[in-house]
Amino acid sequence: MNNTICIRLLLCLFTGSLVSAQEPTKPPIAIAIHGGAGTILKKNMTPEKEQSIREVLSSAIHAGYELLQQGGSSQEAVVAAIHVMEDSPLFNAGKGAVLNALGEVELDASFMEGKNRNAGAVAGVRHVRNPIDAAVAVMESSPHVMLVGAGADSFAQAQGLTAVEQEYFITPARQKSLKRLQSKLNKAQAALTAEEDLFIRQQRYGTVGCVALDRAGNLAAGTSTGGMTNKQWNRVGDAPIIGAGTYADNASCAISATGWGEYFIRNVVAYDIAAQMMYGGRSLADAAQHSIHQRVAPLGGDGGIIGLDASGQITMEMNTPGMYRASIDINGTLEVKIYADE
Amino acid sequence: MNNTICIRLLLCLFTGSLVSAQEPTKPPIAIAIHGGAGTILKKNMTPEKEQSIREVLSSAIHAGYELLQQGGSSQEAVVAAIHVMEDSPLFNAGKGAVLNALGEVELDASFMEGKNRNAGAVAGVRHVRNPIDAAVAVMESSPHVMLVGAGADSFAQAQGLTAVEQEYFITPARQKSLKRLQSKLNKAQAALTAEEDLFIRQQRYGTVGCVALDRAGNLAAGTSTGGMTNKQWNRVGDAPIIGAGTYADNASCAISATGWGEYFIRNVVAYDIAAQMMYGGRSLADAAQHSIHQRVAPLGGDGGIIGLDASGQITMEMNTPGMYRASIDINGTLEVKIYADE
Repeated sequence: MNNTICIRLLLCLFTGSLVSAQEPTKPPIAIAIHGGAGTILKKNMTPEKEQSIREVLSSAIHAGYELLQQGGSSQEAVVAAIHVMEDSPLFNAGKGAVLNALGEVELDASFMEGKNRNAGAVAGVRHVRNPIDAAVAVMESSPHVMLVGAGADSFAQAQGLTAVEQEYFITPARQKSLKRLQSKLNKAQAALTAEEDLFIRQQRYGTVGCVALDRAGNLAAGTSTGGMTNKQWNRVGDAPIIGAGTYADNASCAISATGWGEYFIRNVVAYDIAAQMMYGGRSLADAAQHSIHQRVAPLGGDGGIIGLDASGQITMEMNTPGMYRASIDINGTLEVKIYADE
Repeated sequence: MNNTICIRLLLCLFTGSLVSAQEPTKPPIAIAIHGGAGTILKKNMTPEKEQSIREVLSSAIHAGYELLQQGGSSQEAVVAAIHVMEDSPLFNAGKGAVLNALGEVELDASFMEGKNRNAGAVAGVRHVRNPIDAAVAVMESSPHVMLVGAGADSFAQAQGLTAVEQEYFITPARQKSLKRLQSKLNKAQAALTAEEDLFIRQQRYGTVGCVALDRAGNLAAGTSTGGMTNKQWNRVGDAPIIGAGTYADNASCAISATGWGEYFIRNVVAYDIAAQMMYGGRSLADAAQHSIHQRVAPLGGDGGIIGLDASGQITMEMNTPGMYRASIDINGTLEVKIYADE
């Protein structure tokens, strides 16, 4: 090794140590995402599908994290991460969302910022390419928190958000799932095999979401979904309900939920976790465990949440066999996971 | 006084005292209703209008209370009381609901029972005569908690609920209010008189609701509304949102809210009160005060709530000059009030 190289190397090591010594003095940033919870079992997964899902989760979390690193807001990070999952046909949100009983998509999304508890939500939109953008637009550009159906689509278009035809969202895989589900539903319950019954129950799940903490100490949470396969009567789940599927408050935490929406609405899950922290002095992790295992589960519901508190602590809690998820914590450590026991 | 009369009198007194000694051993029943909170000022009210409103409130609370006395469930009582207010053109729910920007009604309602945290809600229905019935039907006869728009109307009709044309709901008084509001909105904000500005702000309010406790110890809560005058884009307020406008759990309380819906959603008001009781050990009264005055008000919102806990304690809290309201407490004492300082 000649002297020049040696000096360069020492300089590199020195610069490296300086950077790592400085890093902890910067306010923490952290981000977590989910791509839905449910009966996700290794035996039903091909290595290729698993690989594709991990790749999209990784792209999504990096899209958000890079913005946070550059000093972007938690809102920008949440929106960026959710865009990646909405644009991927692999997740039940945006492109590739599940189909309702008529073979169409109806999309729900919500967003909340922790700084001031501002929030926006849309339910049952059919033409906004990225429903999370519509939720943010409701928050920023209307006096309202929640718009639904055709009115929400009109509002989004008036705000200049990209509108697409239904064909954009609909994928052959979701058409196949809908047909398969409808044919199974035509069979008597008693005649269903265990696998078929599981398949029917699985249709309740699938949502994407993100929680983030930025350098300014602001939390944000967002959730986006196509809801349940074969849904009827303009059913709305927990994803667009502030307090149920999404909640953020710098005084407690940011939460995005996924699971059997009806149970998450009845238990006001996202806000229940925040309230335990505020009024009961519980940690985010303890509060999330209580909410999923002591409130949702005893009523017969299942699903999971991702949560982040103002110090950057991340929690992911579920009572399902799996939840697609990823996180980058305050130390910059990346995790991408699928199964509960991973 | 001859002996026979004397004996009869003594018997009467004896029986009377027996009855009053027995009454307290029966489990308590109680009920409270509201007909909306807002800028309700004595100077803007005619004695005739005040009288009519007090009469409907009185009919509504008695309709519910009589069912409770006969051993009916809190669900039956809540529905009966709300029916009276939905059917009256004086309140912003059902017949006489306010009109949206197109001069039509879009109605929202929700219901929750405290025994098992079952819940149902509809938003943006246009043809169900009594939207509270549709909320109950969603809870009882669908696997869902929330249905919106045309789907919710179809579901209600499939359940055999009475459907009516829009004309049934629309009253000349609400048409006049809409015209008046729209003409004021066409004026520049700076050109508005204080009275006109107040008139515009007032359009945010008006909802009916009921909370009840039955002899079996079960709480229930329901809320029904036409939302805001001149609303656009299928706006949904807090009334049909479980956790925001309505919540019930025997472990804490039953709540129905009314006010500036957006602030009640962002603060998850109904569940916030329950959570303070469960996790913070606060009384219903303290929790309600905190929610309205420390959470809603600091963000700029206003409105009120009615609440009832499992022991039958009633709370009515508001930060508006008035809230149409009535209650019959565990001692059978009736109160009918309009102004905050009554």
